[in-house]
Amino acid sequence: MPEQNFPYQRLFDFTQAIFEKIGCSSSDAKTATTSLLSADLRGIDSHGVARLSGYIRLWEAQRVNAKPVIKVIHETPSTAVVDGDKGLGLVVAPFAMQVAIEKAKRVGTGWVSVQNSNHFGIAAHHAMMALQHDMIGIAMTNASATVAPTFSVDKMLGTNPICVVAPAGHQPAFVADLATTTAANGKLEILQRKNLSAPAGWVQDAKGNNSTDSNELKKGGALLPLGGDREHGSHKGYALGAIVDIFSALLSGANYAPWVPPFPAYLAMPEQQPGKGIGHFLGAMRVDAFRPAEEFKKSMDHWIHGFRSAKTVAGEKQVLIPGDPEREMETIRLTKGIPLLNTVVKDLETLAGRFNIPFIG
Amino acid sequence: MPEQNFPYQRLFDFTQAIFEKIGCSSSDAKTATTSLLSADLRGIDSHGVARLSGYIRLWEAQRVNAKPVIKVIHETPSTAVVDGDKGLGLVVAPFAMQVAIEKAKRVGTGWVSVQNSNHFGIAAHHAMMALQHDMIGIAMTNASATVAPTFSVDKMLGTNPICVVAPAGHQPAFVADLATTTAANGKLEILQRKNLSAPAGWVQDAKGNNSTDSNELKKGGALLPLGGDREHGSHKGYALGAIVDIFSALLSGANYAPWVPPFPAYLAMPEQQPGKGIGHFLGAMRVDAFRPAEEFKKSMDHWIHGFRSAKTVAGEKQVLIPGDPEREMETIRLTKGIPLLNTVVKDLETLAGRFNIPFIG
Repeated sequence: MPEQNFPYQRLFDFTQAIFEKIGCSSSDAKTATTSLLSADLRGIDSHGVARLSGYIRLWEAQRVNAKPVIKVIHETPSTAVVDGDKGLGLVVAPFAMQVAIEKAKRVGTGWVSVQNSNHFGIAAHHAMMALQHDMIGIAMTNASATVAPTFSVDKMLGTNPICVVAPAGHQPAFVADLATTTAANGKLEILQRKNLSAPAGWVQDAKGNNSTDSNELKKGGALLPLGGDREHGSHKGYALGAIVDIFSALLSGANYAPWVPPFPAYLAMPEQQPGKGIGHFLGAMRVDAFRPAEEFKKSMDHWIHGFRSAKTVAGEKQVLIPGDPEREMETIRLTKGIPLLNTVVKDLETLAGRFNIPFIG
Repeated sequence: MPEQNFPYQRLFDFTQAIFEKIGCSSSDAKTATTSLLSADLRGIDSHGVARLSGYIRLWEAQRVNAKPVIKVIHETPSTAVVDGDKGLGLVVAPFAMQVAIEKAKRVGTGWVSVQNSNHFGIAAHHAMMALQHDMIGIAMTNASATVAPTFSVDKMLGTNPICVVAPAGHQPAFVADLATTTAANGKLEILQRKNLSAPAGWVQDAKGNNSTDSNELKKGGALLPLGGDREHGSHKGYALGAIVDIFSALLSGANYAPWVPPFPAYLAMPEQQPGKGIGHFLGAMRVDAFRPAEEFKKSMDHWIHGFRSAKTVAGEKQVLIPGDPEREMETIRLTKGIPLLNTVVKDLETLAGRFNIPFIG
């Protein structure tokens, strides 16, 4: 695949300018850009600037409100429900995470369920806001249904990721961010481009049969929950995806299950809408609400060192700590730039032309 | 396997009497028995009365304190750390869950990390205490290391289960309770008894090679994280098990990773002990800290009905809701009794003889 490298700052300025052109305040545009490009920095290319035109199409379809009044509509000392006012999830989620952090400062933990939002990019970006406060951070979101639960032909859940981050001392933070499916859609897209088939346990066809066709999703098939099939624990992946749906949408009043609006603006909205927009769930736990932060971080260092020192299977150098690959990628990309496929570059050039902004500065 | 059925009440009276014989108060003995037998009722035979003699051996080895002074050693309005004083986890966990529930009543949510405890039976029993208060319940525990993380030969984590329960309206509650491995050890034991091999992705041998030998754990092998291998997402199961370890032990000051004490009393304690006993994590979220409980439960009913109505793959009657099989089992066993293998019956008869209690009343 032909591709070019772009410095982070150039992509940042461009993306911020686009968000401002659709009407976002300068501050919201900056927040949205930081959220979106955190995916490119961390190597989650499917969730980064490649999706910018998709967000703009949602704005065109009047499904994204560029000037949302995001607000807390219900709260207790440790909880809140946030109404995202159809804003970009890239802006709504950091708002909600900040509410969770403020509550954690006061009563030890904060838990915020969000309704009436849109896609929020990568979960890790929002959860990691907790780290600078010596808090454990949690982020989840539901998404439009692409996943068939165990025994189901119908797609009933999104890839519904769970992210949990914990601070360490001299070691880097623990950052686990995982879709509750065997593999995320982005990995299938890589196989499609290379004309390769998918491993067993990733997808099923439109009738619910096992399949290794990496194009199955476009043919009416479904992603499979983590585990793949019943024998390998797919009911567990299904349960985890369901938990994310309950926390993100049933607690907040967002849409859930097969009724979550799709990301592509050209897809029709579900006929039934039991709630508002899509839902997220953000949490923050102050470490020193449990024990002194220095003690905890020392234990985390010891824990991490233990895992890094474990004996590896043949052919592998080291047991990885969740977050290792993404952190290493970020270091590389901050210096060497972010590689974009030519199709993505063309897409951005079209946006540039349309909003009359220079893409290559 | 030859087996007999026993009425729940008879097993209850017997088990309570045994716990009283080792010195538990009548109230603690009742709590421990209710926790332990909830596993037998729900069909999780590996975690029920079959383990009673194992708990007694831990008491003999002075690793279980029959008269613990369980107490909160640190707290904020929404959090607490509980010291289990080496008590039975079967008693310590319900204590900690009650603390979480009381905090949720006052500030919306309650989160309790527990140190210095022992095995707590099944997570679902403790999490389900939240349901009668219209709360979401959460329970996790770490356990001695039987699981090799992705790329590791060494066993670094326990089967570290995650349980999340949510109340519904006219539908039964949602009860997800899952070990973060492809399969729990109990399932391997069933295969061993039948002389069957294990599916790929359940275990690896002592050198870290793929294996289908259901006896692999006894030969130095390891269980595999949910996902089985890297290609099928084992790094996600590993991350989930790690999260349970962090919440249960790093937040509380319990032992973690490969340093968690083993359940069988005949196994040596780990040489290094970075904390105290094993750790649990209990949480409670008041539903109406987010939205009116009746609204939430109505949405849960709609959600559950949607999943039950999904089209099924060939050969399956219905998409199940997490908790369905265990609830159905409980109904059957409350009327027909609890089937025990003859080896378990003999084990209980030995206990009866030793403590001079009639086993068959």
